[in-house]
Amino acid sequence: MIKVGIVGGTGYTGVELLRLLAQHPQVNVAMITSRSETGVKVCDMYPNLRGHYDTLAFSEPDAKQLGAMDAVFFATPHGVAHALAGELLENGTRVIDLSADFRLRDADEWSRWYGQAHGAPELLQEAVYGLPEMHREKIKNARLIAVPGCYPTSVQLGYLPLLEAGLIDPGQLIADCKSGVTGAGRGAKVGSLLAEASESMKAYGASGHRHLPEISQGLRDIQQSTVGLTFVPHLTPMIRGIHSTLYGQLTADPGDLQALFEQRYANEPFVDVMPAGSHPETRSVKGINTCRLAVHRPGNGNTVVVLSVIDNLVKGASGQAIQNLNLMFGFDENTGLTAPALMP
Amino acid sequence: MIKVGIVGGTGYTGVELLRLLAQHPQVNVAMITSRSETGVKVCDMYPNLRGHYDTLAFSEPDAKQLGAMDAVFFATPHGVAHALAGELLENGTRVIDLSADFRLRDADEWSRWYGQAHGAPELLQEAVYGLPEMHREKIKNARLIAVPGCYPTSVQLGYLPLLEAGLIDPGQLIADCKSGVTGAGRGAKVGSLLAEASESMKAYGASGHRHLPEISQGLRDIQQSTVGLTFVPHLTPMIRGIHSTLYGQLTADPGDLQALFEQRYANEPFVDVMPAGSHPETRSVKGINTCRLAVHRPGNGNTVVVLSVIDNLVKGASGQAIQNLNLMFGFDENTGLTAPALMP
Amino acid sequence: MIKVGIVGGTGYTGVELLRLLAQHPQVNVAMITSRSETGVKVCDMYPNLRGHYDTLAFSEPDAKQLGAMDAVFFATPHGVAHALAGELLENGTRVIDLSADFRLRDADEWSRWYGQAHGAPELLQEAVYGLPEMHREKIKNARLIAVPGCYPTSVQLGYLPLLEAGLIDPGQLIADCKSGVTGAGRGAKVGSLLAEASESMKAYGASGHRHLPEISQGLRDIQQSTVGLTFVPHLTPMIRGIHSTLYGQLTADPGDLQALFEQRYANEPFVDVMPAGSHPETRSVKGINTCRLAVHRPGNGNTVVVLSVIDNLVKGASGQAIQNLNLMFGFDENTGLTAPALMP
Amino acid sequence: MIKVGIVGGTGYTGVELLRLLAQHPQVNVAMITSRSETGVKVCDMYPNLRGHYDTLAFSEPDAKQLGAMDAVFFATPHGVAHALAGELLENGTRVIDLSADFRLRDADEWSRWYGQAHGAPELLQEAVYGLPEMHREKIKNARLIAVPGCYPTSVQLGYLPLLEAGLIDPGQLIADCKSGVTGAGRGAKVGSLLAEASESMKAYGASGHRHLPEISQGLRDIQQSTVGLTFVPHLTPMIRGIHSTLYGQLTADPGDLQALFEQRYANEPFVDVMPAGSHPETRSVKGINTCRLAVHRPGNGNTVVVLSVIDNLVKGASGQAIQNLNLMFGFDENTGLTAPALMP
Repeated sequence: MIKVGIVGGTGYTGVELLRLLAQHPQVNVAMITSRSETGVKVCDMYPNLRGHYDTLAFSEPDAKQLGAMDAVFFATPHGVAHALAGELLENGTRVIDLSADFRLRDADEWSRWYGQAHGAPELLQEAVYGLPEMHREKIKNARLIAVPGCYPTSVQLGYLPLLEAGLIDPGQLIADCKSGVTGAGRGAKVGSLLAEASESMKAYGASGHRHLPEISQGLRDIQQSTVGLTFVPHLTPMIRGIHSTLYGQLTADPGDLQALFEQRYANEPFVDVMPAGSHPETRSVKGINTCRLAVHRPGNGNTVVVLSVIDNLVKGASGQAIQNLNLMFGFDENTGLTAPALMP
Repeated sequence: MIKVGIVGGTGYTGVELLRLLAQHPQVNVAMITSRSETGVKVCDMYPNLRGHYDTLAFSEPDAKQLGAMDAVFFATPHGVAHALAGELLENGTRVIDLSADFRLRDADEWSRWYGQAHGAPELLQEAVYGLPEMHREKIKNARLIAVPGCYPTSVQLGYLPLLEAGLIDPGQLIADCKSGVTGAGRGAKVGSLLAEASESMKAYGASGHRHLPEISQGLRDIQQSTVGLTFVPHLTPMIRGIHSTLYGQLTADPGDLQALFEQRYANEPFVDVMPAGSHPETRSVKGINTCRLAVHRPGNGNTVVVLSVIDNLVKGASGQAIQNLNLMFGFDENTGLTAPALMP
Repeated sequence: MIKVGIVGGTGYTGVELLRLLAQHPQVNVAMITSRSETGVKVCDMYPNLRGHYDTLAFSEPDAKQLGAMDAVFFATPHGVAHALAGELLENGTRVIDLSADFRLRDADEWSRWYGQAHGAPELLQEAVYGLPEMHREKIKNARLIAVPGCYPTSVQLGYLPLLEAGLIDPGQLIADCKSGVTGAGRGAKVGSLLAEASESMKAYGASGHRHLPEISQGLRDIQQSTVGLTFVPHLTPMIRGIHSTLYGQLTADPGDLQALFEQRYANEPFVDVMPAGSHPETRSVKGINTCRLAVHRPGNGNTVVVLSVIDNLVKGASGQAIQNLNLMFGFDENTGLTAPALMP
Repeated sequence: MIKVGIVGGTGYTGVELLRLLAQHPQVNVAMITSRSETGVKVCDMYPNLRGHYDTLAFSEPDAKQLGAMDAVFFATPHGVAHALAGELLENGTRVIDLSADFRLRDADEWSRWYGQAHGAPELLQEAVYGLPEMHREKIKNARLIAVPGCYPTSVQLGYLPLLEAGLIDPGQLIADCKSGVTGAGRGAKVGSLLAEASESMKAYGASGHRHLPEISQGLRDIQQSTVGLTFVPHLTPMIRGIHSTLYGQLTADPGDLQALFEQRYANEPFVDVMPAGSHPETRSVKGINTCRLAVHRPGNGNTVVVLSVIDNLVKGASGQAIQNLNLMFGFDENTGLTAPALMP
C-alpha cells in the first residue's frame, strides 16, 4: 500500500483519479489539495464519491506534506507542476503530471505555445513521456512522468504501427479529432454550457492547437524524422470520449494492415484492435483505460484510415496516469483498471 | 464460486448483469441465452465486454442446461419466466426474475394489467419480492425472487420511512417520476430514437401504467391498509436514471424528518440519505446500486416532498438482482457492487 | 411600423426577441443595449442572426435614446427595469418587462424573495400582468407589462379552467415542473455545463423558489381566495422547454373535463388543448408561442392531472412579450408568431 | 399559388417540407401520400403541425391525383421516384426528387451502389442535379430535379471555390463528415436509439458509402477531371446538422483564400462565408437553408481546411428542394426560407 497525493483535485481529471483509485487495492489517497476548496470534503463536492472517501477533504497544497507521499499526481493547469515538482523529487516523491508541463522536451517550444517561460527546464531531461505503449521500460524507472494529452494519446496510438513499419508518408498526416466537452475542463465557460454545446458540432483551433507540437514530437520519435501533421479538433456534444480519425498516404504496399495492427498491440493490455471492418464507438470505452482501434483502406486505394477511440478522462488522462503509477511501483499494470465500460 | 445463467441476455438488463458480474469475485456466468442471437459472442454484440467474456456466446434457452446452474436470472419480457421457473426450481436452481412475472401476488390483477393469463400462479405463494430494505430475511431463504421494477424501487424506498411512521395520508400519495430512455428497453421503437426522444420531455401512461399495481401493493404492505396513489411517469432525455418526486400530506407533526430518514436507512448499504436541503442528481448514481434520498417540507407546511434517485438499470434492475443473489448465497451484500458512480 | 428597443440583449430572452422579431412585419428593432458588449454587432455574437441584423450593434443603455422608441423590452436581470421604466413611461414609451420586476403586486413580498428593496413601487398599481388568456383587455390599454415567468405561465394556463370552474381544492395544488437549461440563463455557471447537466435529472429549490409567489398570486386572482401550492422545479437535460405536471384534488363531479378545457381555450390562439388521452411533448412547441395542454383523471378517481408544455423562451418569455406588444399596438395577436415548431 | 404534392410524407424530409411550406406564401400542399398511414391526419402524426394543416391527411400514392399537381416532391426511399416520375412528367407535373434516384448520371454506377437495376434510365438525360450554386440556370428550366444528398451538398459547396480555381490536388481530397442522427431517417433501428447513439461518436461506412459516387461526380463536374476522394462519415449525437471538415493539398500559391471564397459566394443567398478565422457551428443553421463556410490554412502550410455546416434536413434536403421549386416556378429564390435559425 502506497500513499499518494493529488494536487488540484477539483477538476475532472482530479475526480476521475479519485473514482478510479477507489478501486485500487494498493493505493491510499492520503491527501488532495485545492486552494479554492480548502476544507471541503471531496464527497460534498462530488456526491458520486459518498461512501468512498467520507473523510478526505481538500487542503492547501503544502509541499512538505506532499513530500511525505510516495507519489503525487498533478491534475492542475499548466505551470503548477513546474513550481512544485523539483522539491518533491528531491524528497524522493515520484511525480506524475497530468498537465502539459513536461510533455515537450524543448522549453522554448513550450514557451511559444503556452505563452510563458518554462518554469523547470532543468527537469526536462529526466521527464519521461508516459505513453506505456512506447516507453514502458523508461516509465518503470522514472521519477517524473509527463502523462500524454488526450488527443495525443489517441493519435499516436493510431499512427504508431504505420509509422514504425514505414508505410505512410510522414509529411502528409491528417488527424481529424472529435472530443466530448470534458476535454475543455470544469471551468464555467459560456461555450461549454449545455445550452451552447449540445445539439451542435464545431471545429476549434483549426489554425493551431497546443496539442499539435506534442503530437508532432511523439510522431517524430516514432518516425525518426520530421513529420507534417494537420490536426483539427472538434467539440462534440457528449460528456466523455475522443474519436480520432487518422488519414495517411501509403508509400508502399502495406500488406495485411489488420495483422500489422494486431501484432503490434498483441501484448498491450490497454489497446484493443477491433476486427477488420469495425467502427469503434467512443461509448465502448466510457470510463475505462482502453484505446480501441480499427484500420481501413477505402477502395483498396492509397489512403489508409485509422479510427481510434479513448475516454479522454481515462486513457486520455487519469487512467493512463494510474497505468504509469502501476508500472513505476511494480504493480500489475492493470491494477485498479479492470472494470468494463458503462454501456449503454 | 457459483455458476449462473442469464435467460434473455440481449436487452439492457442482460448486458448490465454481465457488466456488473464481471467484477463479482464469486460468480461465474456460465450460460447466457437468446433465441435471436444464438451463436453470437456477447462481446461482439456489446464491445464494452471485449476482454471480459471473450468466449461466452448466446445459446438457446435450454431448461436442462439452465438446470445445471446454481442460479438463473431472467432478463426477459413478461411471460418467459412463468414458463421456465417451475422446472428450474424443481432442479434446485434458484430463480431471480427481473421481469414482472412474479411481482404481483394476485394472479388476476396480473392478468388484467398484462393482458394474458398468469402462467405460473402456483409459484406466487413462494415468490419473494426482492426489495432487501423491506424483505431481507425472506430473501435470504428464498428460491424465487421477483426483482422489483425500476419505478417501484425508487418510489417505495422514498415513501417507506413516512408510511412506517404513519406520518402521511396513505390515500393521497402522488409520485411524479422521470426516467431515462433505457427504461423502455432496447427494442427498436420510433419513440425511443434519439431524434424523437432527445431535446424533449413528456409524460406517458398518465391514466394508468403497469407499475402502478406493483407500487400500490408494496405501499400497502408497508402501510397495512389501502393506499391511494397517483403515479405519472415521464420520459426524460437521458440514457439512465430515475428521479422520483414524491408528495405526501402530513397527518401529524412529523418531528425531525431528516433524522427519521437517516435512522431508517442507517444500516442499509445501498440507501444514502443526503444531507438536509439536498437535491440528489440521477448522475450521482450512474452505474451503481445506490438509491439517494432527500426529504423536504416546503414552507414548513403540510406537504412533504421526497426526492429519490436510482439508476434504473442497476438498483432498478440488475444491481438489485445481484444484491438479492448475494443475500441468497450468503455473500457480502455488496459483493461486486462497490465501484463509485461514473461522474461526470 | 413601430420602433422598439431591447435592454439587456445578450441573454437568451434577448436573442430570442431578435429571432422572433426578424419575422415581424410591423416592428423595427432600432436599438439593443448591453453594457458588457457595447459596439459588438449582434450577428457577431449570435451567428444565427447573420443576414438578418447585419448592422445592429449593442449600445449603452441610454434612457434618452430608449425614450425615442415606441416600446422597449427589458430582457434583464431583476432590478434594471425598476430603474428605467418610470422615465420611459413619462416619455410615452411603452414598457414590456420580461424580468420579475413588476410581476408581484406587493412590493414587500417582492423584497423578501429578491433580497433587495423594490425600486419602483409607485408603478405597481399600473403594471399589468401580461398573461393574455387572463388579462387581454387590460393588456390592450397598458403602458407597462410584466411578462409572466416561464414556470408561472405553464402552471397558470394548466390550472385556469379547473379553478375558474371551482372543481378542485385550491389548498392542495401540486405543480411538478421540468425545465430545460436555458431557464437558468446564459451565465457561465458550473451547474449549467453540458458535462454537469446532461445525462442527469435533479430537482432544485424544493423548499422555495422565486416563481412560487408569482404563481400563487396568479392562482389567487383566478380563484378569488387563498391557495396552497407546492411547487417543485426540476432541471432537465435539454435546451428548451417546460413540462408542468399539475395535480389537483377534485371537490365536485367534474363532468367532462376535456370539454371544459376545450371550451375555455376555444378562442385562444396560443393555447392548444390536445385530444383526450394525449401526452404533449415539449418538442412540439420548440420555438413557438403555443402552450399545449392535456387533462387526465387517472382511474376516474379524485385526482386530476394536467400536462402543460411550453417553450420557456417563447410562450415563457419572448414570444409572450411579443404577443403582448401585438395587443398593445393593435396588431393581429399572432403577428410574427405563426411559424410551426421545429420537429424533430 | 401552386399546388404541390408530397410522396412519402411520413419521414423526416417529408415533415420538414410541411414545416417549411407552411410559411411559403405561394404554395398549397394539396396532397401527401403514405401507404402505411393512409387516412391519418398529418397533425396527428406530427403535433408541431397542429394549427397549420388541420385537415390534410395521408392518402394512397395515386398517380392520377398526383398528376393534377403543379409539382410533386418525392421524400421516399430510393426506387419509388423511378416508378412514378415518368408518368408525372408526361402530365406536365414537375418532379423534385429528394431521394437518390436521379443523382447519378450513370445507371450502371447507380445499380452497383444501390443493389438493384435503375428503374428509369431514360430520364437520366434530362434530370438536373439541383445544386443551385452550380446549376442555377438549368434548374430554372428543369422538369425533373435530383435534389443533392446532405453530405454531398456540404462537401461540394466547401470544395467548389478551390477546385474551380485549380488550387488543390483533385487526387488527394479528404472529407471527414459528421452528421446528426436524422440523417439515418425515421426508421426504428437499434443503432439510432437515444440509448445507443447519444453520448457516443463513431464513424461508419469508412470503406465505402453511397454518397461517395455522388460527391465524386459533382467534384468531377467542377474539376473537369477525375478526382480521388476519401470520404468518412460519422454519426454524431445530435438531431440535426452536418459538419464537413474538408482537406486539400495546395498545388499553387493560393493567394487570399478568404477573398476567393467571399467572391465565389458573394451573390449566393444561401451560402455564408464566415469571417476569417471562424469555426461555424452546426446549430447556427438549425432549421434554415444556409450553408456556412470557413477556410483555414494551418501554419501557412500546404494543407487547406474548409469547415462547412448545413442542416441536413434543410439545405441537405427539404429546404434545398424548395429552393429548387422557387427557381423552377420563378418565385424569389428565398421565398419561404427566410426565418433565422433557432439558437440556442
